[in-house]
Amino acid sequence: MIVVMDSSASRAHVDAVVRRIRDLGCDAHVSVGRSRTVIGVVGDRSRLTPDIFDSLPGVSHTMRVSAPFKFVSREFQPAPSVVTAGSGDAVARFGAGHFGVIAGPCAVESRDQLFRTAERVASAGAVMLRGDAFKPRTSPYSFQGLGERGLELLAQAREEFGLPFVAEVVDPRDVPLVASYADMLRVGTRNMANFPLLSEVGRARKPVQLKRGFTATIDEWLQAAEYIFKEGNHDILLVERGIRTFEQSTRNTLDVSAVPVLHGLSHLPVLVDPSHAGGRRELVLPLAAAAVAAGADGLMVDVHVDPSSAKVDAAQAIVPDEFDDLMEVVSRVRQAVAV
Amino acid sequence: MIVVMDSSASRAHVDAVVRRIRDLGCDAHVSVGRSRTVIGVVGDRSRLTPDIFDSLPGVSHTMRVSAPFKFVSREFQPAPSVVTAGSGDAVARFGAGHFGVIAGPCAVESRDQLFRTAERVASAGAVMLRGDAFKPRTSPYSFQGLGERGLELLAQAREEFGLPFVAEVVDPRDVPLVASYADMLRVGTRNMANFPLLSEVGRARKPVQLKRGFTATIDEWLQAAEYIFKEGNHDILLVERGIRTFEQSTRNTLDVSAVPVLHGLSHLPVLVDPSHAGGRRELVLPLAAAAVAAGADGLMVDVHVDPSSAKVDAAQAIVPDEFDDLMEVVSRVRQAVAV
Amino acid sequence: MIVVMDSSASRAHVDAVVRRIRDLGCDAHVSVGRSRTVIGVVGDRSRLTPDIFDSLPGVSHTMRVSAPFKFVSREFQPAPSVVTAGSGDAVARFGAGHFGVIAGPCAVESRDQLFRTAERVASAGAVMLRGDAFKPRTSPYSFQGLGERGLELLAQAREEFGLPFVAEVVDPRDVPLVASYADMLRVGTRNMANFPLLSEVGRARKPVQLKRGFTATIDEWLQAAEYIFKEGNHDILLVERGIRTFEQSTRNTLDVSAVPVLHGLSHLPVLVDPSHAGGRRELVLPLAAAAVAAGADGLMVDVHVDPSSAKVDAAQAIVPDEFDDLMEVVSRVRQAVAV
Amino acid sequence: MIVVMDSSASRAHVDAVVRRIRDLGCDAHVSVGRSRTVIGVVGDRSRLTPDIFDSLPGVSHTMRVSAPFKFVSREFQPAPSVVTAGSGDAVARFGAGHFGVIAGPCAVESRDQLFRTAERVASAGAVMLRGDAFKPRTSPYSFQGLGERGLELLAQAREEFGLPFVAEVVDPRDVPLVASYADMLRVGTRNMANFPLLSEVGRARKPVQLKRGFTATIDEWLQAAEYIFKEGNHDILLVERGIRTFEQSTRNTLDVSAVPVLHGLSHLPVLVDPSHAGGRRELVLPLAAAAVAAGADGLMVDVHVDPSSAKVDAAQAIVPDEFDDLMEVVSRVRQAVAV
Repeated sequence: MIVVMDSSASRAHVDAVVRRIRDLGCDAHVSVGRSRTVIGVVGDRSRLTPDIFDSLPGVSHTMRVSAPFKFVSREFQPAPSVVTAGSGDAVARFGAGHFGVIAGPCAVESRDQLFRTAERVASAGAVMLRGDAFKPRTSPYSFQGLGERGLELLAQAREEFGLPFVAEVVDPRDVPLVASYADMLRVGTRNMANFPLLSEVGRARKPVQLKRGFTATIDEWLQAAEYIFKEGNHDILLVERGIRTFEQSTRNTLDVSAVPVLHGLSHLPVLVDPSHAGGRRELVLPLAAAAVAAGADGLMVDVHVDPSSAKVDAAQAIVPDEFDDLMEVVSRVRQAVAV
Repeated sequence: MIVVMDSSASRAHVDAVVRRIRDLGCDAHVSVGRSRTVIGVVGDRSRLTPDIFDSLPGVSHTMRVSAPFKFVSREFQPAPSVVTAGSGDAVARFGAGHFGVIAGPCAVESRDQLFRTAERVASAGAVMLRGDAFKPRTSPYSFQGLGERGLELLAQAREEFGLPFVAEVVDPRDVPLVASYADMLRVGTRNMANFPLLSEVGRARKPVQLKRGFTATIDEWLQAAEYIFKEGNHDILLVERGIRTFEQSTRNTLDVSAVPVLHGLSHLPVLVDPSHAGGRRELVLPLAAAAVAAGADGLMVDVHVDPSSAKVDAAQAIVPDEFDDLMEVVSRVRQAVAV
Repeated sequence: MIVVMDSSASRAHVDAVVRRIRDLGCDAHVSVGRSRTVIGVVGDRSRLTPDIFDSLPGVSHTMRVSAPFKFVSREFQPAPSVVTAGSGDAVARFGAGHFGVIAGPCAVESRDQLFRTAERVASAGAVMLRGDAFKPRTSPYSFQGLGERGLELLAQAREEFGLPFVAEVVDPRDVPLVASYADMLRVGTRNMANFPLLSEVGRARKPVQLKRGFTATIDEWLQAAEYIFKEGNHDILLVERGIRTFEQSTRNTLDVSAVPVLHGLSHLPVLVDPSHAGGRRELVLPLAAAAVAAGADGLMVDVHVDPSSAKVDAAQAIVPDEFDDLMEVVSRVRQAVAV
Repeated sequence: MIVVMDSSASRAHVDAVVRRIRDLGCDAHVSVGRSRTVIGVVGDRSRLTPDIFDSLPGVSHTMRVSAPFKFVSREFQPAPSVVTAGSGDAVARFGAGHFGVIAGPCAVESRDQLFRTAERVASAGAVMLRGDAFKPRTSPYSFQGLGERGLELLAQAREEFGLPFVAEVVDPRDVPLVASYADMLRVGTRNMANFPLLSEVGRARKPVQLKRGFTATIDEWLQAAEYIFKEGNHDILLVERGIRTFEQSTRNTLDVSAVPVLHGLSHLPVLVDPSHAGGRRELVLPLAAAAVAAGADGLMVDVHVDPSSAKVDAAQAIVPDEFDDLMEVVSRVRQAVAV
């Protein structure tokens, strides 16, 4: 059960609801978001009925939710969420009819590489820039990112090209640093079940991209999102990026079905990353088109001005000219599937 | 290496090439198709050069092919194949720009069920009817199909609605029977590696749909197609229908990447079956749209006038009104991705 | 529900039970085995109670079975089955405390190869010979077996070394031929869901090895065994041989848990094939030991006198000296886990 | 290439080697372990030959290593490692012939639960206690552990029963705290690719258990171990605990082949956790026996005095009487497979 507070509810109102929940032998999970406060009730709910709370001051209404991922479920919130990143002129919106493409290099390697790529993706219509400063790598001997210097370059590119940017965070201790630069934080595929990191980004005041663990079920993924929401961060984008299967001709297998399945289960916007899914440059366009046809609220695409020199994931980056084509096809497919 | 014979080559010309191959210590695999004869050379090819064969009478040209699936590879035939089913007014074409939707009930249950469904899918623009008379079922206690009576009904529906039909064959001994009624044979997912069945349909004079084994790699799938082609049947449609993964929210995981990957490796047309992939009615439309956006040459869709009474796979059949919507969306997506 | 007939029941008694079942609106599946006749009742069982049948002449007793695999379930038969192959001096037994190792070359290649291998595995204590005459191969260009000539050689080796033998059958039309030579038939991994083949071996009068499909769940596997049992063949060995997973360092992943899981669900004996599971010679011994420790009723092992010249699966065959070591370790592990 | 320093080498010797490596255009990764210092050389090694370093003061010898996991490979260290946990009377050893069983509750719930379980596993012959104070849970609403209070109880149990203990660490910020109590740290399956955590435990002065990610390949697992080793912590135990596959009758699929495969690739000891692999109480004994038969250097087993009241993973915990049986069977199987 979830108790939704009025937007005008005071701290005292919330405390009164929590006391009441505890008196009834249950646990209360208070999530204070930017625009509203919601309280999840967990435990033996046999003695609970909605009317117990509805009459308390500051309570807007009460919902029964059977899914294990309460706050992020459609049961709790039937209307789709909109996630907004950035401010001023550099704003991107996703969900509930807002569609956008995030593009840029997988990793920030140099000012020149970043700026030349950013200029092209901006002019092609991307609404947001990607580029990582901290990279989780399978091998300890691979390039691990430029660190804070990379974030500085991204912030400069934002100024220059008017694109808010998203950057990965891999260590809970780095969340304040990355959040001080980036417009959106990313939790990568290997960290989807890194619960301390999820909780930390849940306390940050920036929206969060949560990539699917490449071996996570949709149910586990939504429970990971719940960790973030529960801490008060309600601005979450889900990013499908391929799952691990027996098929070896692609890096991962894009689970395009996840898009409509998630739309049925959750109010959160769903993006697709065709670059990491296929892992091959020539698959980026058809997979992007497929994702949009299936109803994705956005895309995230690796673009590099010179893939042959890329330090990370060179095989999957497309060049700016290919990105121009992709944007055009994607725009046509969106119109084709719009009601 | 593959030796392609002139269309005017005689049996004696073919025999001469075969003798030459054997003299050089290799094996010859002769595939006599409807429109051309090709000869695969297998073994130690170190002593072979194309010019050995190019001068022989009846030889058109010679190709080196490194893929294990020789005849069905793009290396062998760079241009996409067109597969044609039916005759007279009831003709369907797939591949090389020809796109078509095959629709109908998963299993033929009665004349009424079949005809009512066929009428609706025909008027919505389907080019071919599906409906099985022999069903491979996990449980021996499930409905196994109407047998020959089902094929008779399908043939009557073809007369009535002008749609050629495809029917599954599960036993090599049934191939002549099914081929005497159907316009196209289907090898189902469980039989993709049933080599005696593949060889038998390879000797039939009807085109063949080869569904992907739900745990087959793309490479294994193309080698299965090679079994069919090798016996002389060059009219093969590949049908992606989802693979088995850890994700349990869908019946299978549609591997939409398989469409562009196959188009890179093979000249055969690629269809997608969104009904068996997702296994849920509400996923059929988004998955169909995704498949077409990814470049599929056609779709195969379960449609049933009354899914609640269906004896097989009830959860995934859409009703005719939903099929009308699907056809419209699919048509728009096709235009969106057409060059 | 299953009705078990007395061993003295006549055909008329069986017919009377079947009539009674049909009168009650259900389907009857009569399985006439060598030692007993059992009748499965499928359909709406709401009007059925065991006492309806218990009073009919020739009926021994009635069982309620909830598993979808009725006849092969432990619910139906709590005591483990014993499967016997061969006759006279050349007999092998598996299950209910009987343990045995089947060994030999993956494919019969020549008299010399077969006999030299058979001699060594016999002297090391193998109870049965393996060696295939018909091989299902991924590529149509790979060695497909010696056919009937291979069966003749196996029969000669049986005479010479006193070992009954098992041989794979891949085509339902070949069942009578293979059954006329072999002491046990094998349905291979790719054919586990080849239902016409299952039904055909179900009608043969020889025991059957049913290998697990490399992507089949245990539940699907037992339903495949049900196809065989239902036709009257009650002598079925289940053979775990590895499943397909994301791990690529072994050919397949041996699912050693399947042994105790199957023993909980079914009365059929369970063997393990460590050769096809690991696909690497150095893994055969540890995997064999693990299988026996987990309670396997037997093993099937590829042994070849000269693996470097093997035409099929060379990497996984062990040599006779290694097989001697394996037999010794396996014997000690068996004693270690025996109660 | 790896440069191994003499045990008497000074810091200045190490620095000289590092300078030399950098002068040659490569990167140096210095791992200062408790007993020796090793230096990995990464980059373009075309200009490197072992003799460049062999003459430098303090250098013992130089090894070429082709595996991506350098320090943990058998190429680097052919002899198996021994990992020692605890001190004084409470010592456990694993590897190179040392075998031990770690047992205890999945999570510490209370003093009573922990002590009653510890007493029984100690008397049955366990060499080490398990019990977690910080639990990573899929749902944010599940029991997350007692925190530091749990560690205090574990330390008291160590005093009482003479068993060193291992405890999971899920947050890099908690490493110093957990290391101040525990004799061994555990990185759990969900954190196998949590690189900041791996680096942090790599800097701790306690041995580390690294559980396999349930969807990690063996290669990725060894690269994760490399992250730990590289930071100077050379005392690493690998724990196989089942992988995610399509099979749903067990919680995970125990990859028993991983034991011999790892022994071929790495010098690190390999343990198996049969409790989390199977997820079912009745499978713990057969899977433990299988693991030992395959050559495991130890086991880790969930034991609970009252599984029905367990807050975490109740279905898989065995009771002390069952653990007694397990210890006896395991001991016999060890002897059976010992050379």
